[in-house]
Amino acid sequence: MLESLKQTVLEANLALRDSALVILTWGNASAIDRERGIVAIKPSGVSYDAMTRDSIVLVDMDGNVVEGTLRPSSDTPTHLALYRCFPQIGGVVHTHSTYAVAWAQACRPIPNIGTTHADTFHADIPCTREMTPEEISEGYERFTGDVISECFKDMNPLHTPGALVRHHGPFTWGETAAKAVENAVILEEVARMAWLTYSLNPSVMMNPDLIEKHYSRKHGKDAYYGQK
Amino acid sequence: MLESLKQTVLEANLALRDSALVILTWGNASAIDRERGIVAIKPSGVSYDAMTRDSIVLVDMDGNVVEGTLRPSSDTPTHLALYRCFPQIGGVVHTHSTYAVAWAQACRPIPNIGTTHADTFHADIPCTREMTPEEISEGYERFTGDVISECFKDMNPLHTPGALVRHHGPFTWGETAAKAVENAVILEEVARMAWLTYSLNPSVMMNPDLIEKHYSRKHGKDAYYGQK
Amino acid sequence: MLESLKQTVLEANLALRDSALVILTWGNASAIDRERGIVAIKPSGVSYDAMTRDSIVLVDMDGNVVEGTLRPSSDTPTHLALYRCFPQIGGVVHTHSTYAVAWAQACRPIPNIGTTHADTFHADIPCTREMTPEEISEGYERFTGDVISECFKDMNPLHTPGALVRHHGPFTWGETAAKAVENAVILEEVARMAWLTYSLNPSVMMNPDLIEKHYSRKHGKDAYYGQK
Amino acid sequence: MLESLKQTVLEANLALRDSALVILTWGNASAIDRERGIVAIKPSGVSYDAMTRDSIVLVDMDGNVVEGTLRPSSDTPTHLALYRCFPQIGGVVHTHSTYAVAWAQACRPIPNIGTTHADTFHADIPCTREMTPEEISEGYERFTGDVISECFKDMNPLHTPGALVRHHGPFTWGETAAKAVENAVILEEVARMAWLTYSLNPSVMMNPDLIEKHYSRKHGKDAYYGQK
Repeated sequence: MLESLKQTVLEANLALRDSALVILTWGNASAIDRERGIVAIKPSGVSYDAMTRDSIVLVDMDGNVVEGTLRPSSDTPTHLALYRCFPQIGGVVHTHSTYAVAWAQACRPIPNIGTTHADTFHADIPCTREMTPEEISEGYERFTGDVISECFKDMNPLHTPGALVRHHGPFTWGETAAKAVENAVILEEVARMAWLTYSLNPSVMMNPDLIEKHYSRKHGKDAYYGQK
Repeated sequence: MLESLKQTVLEANLALRDSALVILTWGNASAIDRERGIVAIKPSGVSYDAMTRDSIVLVDMDGNVVEGTLRPSSDTPTHLALYRCFPQIGGVVHTHSTYAVAWAQACRPIPNIGTTHADTFHADIPCTREMTPEEISEGYERFTGDVISECFKDMNPLHTPGALVRHHGPFTWGETAAKAVENAVILEEVARMAWLTYSLNPSVMMNPDLIEKHYSRKHGKDAYYGQK
Repeated sequence: MLESLKQTVLEANLALRDSALVILTWGNASAIDRERGIVAIKPSGVSYDAMTRDSIVLVDMDGNVVEGTLRPSSDTPTHLALYRCFPQIGGVVHTHSTYAVAWAQACRPIPNIGTTHADTFHADIPCTREMTPEEISEGYERFTGDVISECFKDMNPLHTPGALVRHHGPFTWGETAAKAVENAVILEEVARMAWLTYSLNPSVMMNPDLIEKHYSRKHGKDAYYGQK
Repeated sequence: MLESLKQTVLEANLALRDSALVILTWGNASAIDRERGIVAIKPSGVSYDAMTRDSIVLVDMDGNVVEGTLRPSSDTPTHLALYRCFPQIGGVVHTHSTYAVAWAQACRPIPNIGTTHADTFHADIPCTREMTPEEISEGYERFTGDVISECFKDMNPLHTPGALVRHHGPFTWGETAAKAVENAVILEEVARMAWLTYSLNPSVMMNPDLIEKHYSRKHGKDAYYGQK
């Protein structure tokens, strides 16, 4: 069932490998069928080269496997928490991409200091708070999704489609799995640009007018970037 | 019409991708037919893999599309402003290449601290001033070209064929679109070399005699680099 | 004899090259047949492209060649020392991978400051002490293995499957040669992540609860990462 | 004439491109036939893709072209000066490889702070002094060779087969052109390792015993690295 959802998720996972965002089996992509409440996700610890559409696992919103012979990604509860908290999103991606991880390990948001960043993420990419020992021991992956969503109380998750999990690495999302992958590519590139910039000038900031101009060129009713 | 101009621009855009200066749809190249007052430019937000000669858009000097079914790059007014201000140039390139963006985001010119830089750019590669809220709201892309040209009041744009737009990234140009691409490649490499150098020794400067020697080896009537 | 051991070692050496961990002839992998006390290892200074199964050298635990027409790696005594000190391991890898070498040259352990590190190495990756002039002159390669093993008096070498040799570079190991290669790939990546992180925030540390959570997700009886 | 010398030089130049040490037409390799006093060298400003054996130019020790229809590299007088000053060498290479250029632009020798460096270069890789205005104007390329050779008054150029030209970039050499290329690859890698190391610990030094041990493992009568 849901062959096209599984195909979408297969392609998103392979795109992560092809974009050099993941090595070994690090990283995973999922997509949701909102109507049926079913999420398709990468199996845990399976190499990208061996992955086929049939490797993709279908789970319900409680994490029960409803189709597939492999275990789903150990990060599945994080994906499910994000789908619950952000009803606008259709796909989720997690990677250990290098520069994004560096900011996450440094416990710092990625600062919005250039138009490349503003074009897609609009604001600083937040870094989650420290998790409590209880959260770590009693549902670590689920609480990982919850601490991400805490960052978005006053932010639109489609305007800033990603976050850093402290000490860990980035999650991104989007209206589709393909968009979540694209946002993962952009997040890594803006993380690298910001890292290089801070080494030259750690106190730089960008003018809010310029941020709004760039974001609105690409998004919203007055957007004029791209076709149509 | 102008099939060969369009072919030139197609090849310049593909060369940007092949030189790893752009990811996704970031970056654009154009060329001008000075006699007819027509500029050929990349369409907005179209992937390099899908681009053909017929995707290239022809616009007049006021930005009106005169041939092509796609929207031209949203940066078209910047290209047009540069063609107006710099009558010597035949091609323009814009990228978000990583190290060049880092200097632009740091709001700093790329310092002329090595012979690799002096060979092609002769002087520091300037970084534009902060734009005003009015400039941002009333013709952002056109004013982007204007603030670049302000940097060249006392400089020859063919001797220093590129600039950084503050918070944003590099524009380069040249007598042809192919030369503008080559200058984009060199700008990124000298941006990287200068970044690495500053980390070792941020106060380094280069002897003006050596700068003139290197630039004149490759340019002007006494040049002796290359064939002929 | 031991054709399959030699094949394993050939594949591990080629995997080092394919993972971009080695250039030229730098780096070597070995595997042990514990029952017979025989180690298969890369020949010294032979290019990866020219290497075949028949190039692999078999040595006994005293370093005597028991099969093969080529000289074994000059690092063979280090490999043998590690097999003697760490009876749990089946394969050893040595590389000059760039970021790992940077930490080794800086005489610093790679700090355990992210979940990517904790997932595989559990603790800081130790850096060996300065060797004495006597150790350097009277059995340099053997003592190199011994100073590595000194770091593991109170640590489990399978929980932290690698170390940095001061001024030199990394050794990794594992239950198999393939696992030792995978650990070399991960060590280089976490070395790079930690290097980038320190540049942003050199005082960062990670919560021990989070370290234990990540390590135990992947290792030990309660592991739930991967299949089965 | 000297077809095999020209073939050697063609292959050395292509190896520079294949090793990612050069972009565009930056960099050149040469070899000498000591008996005839003839040097074969890359033509100036010719792309690597278009280069054939017939593109290689033969010059005598005064720089006169004795065969070939193209201009020799503008750096030819530097190569000739090195062949004159270092009678032991058979090949010379010049590149603008990125990390080596960073040290040259920072006006600093590459410090010998790791075994990878000591294995091949034995000592710090020197950086030439500032050139005088007279040297720059009256034979810049020849004096470039001379300021390199000044660094080797008390050093053996085959034990330290490379140098940085201040503000410019690296030259390497060796008994053959192929060895000069290999040394260029190693110089760039040790430049990168040292750059990364200094960022972690700028005061690090290496024990002289360890330097001698590593160098003598690979060089001289007691060498035991490699075959035979």
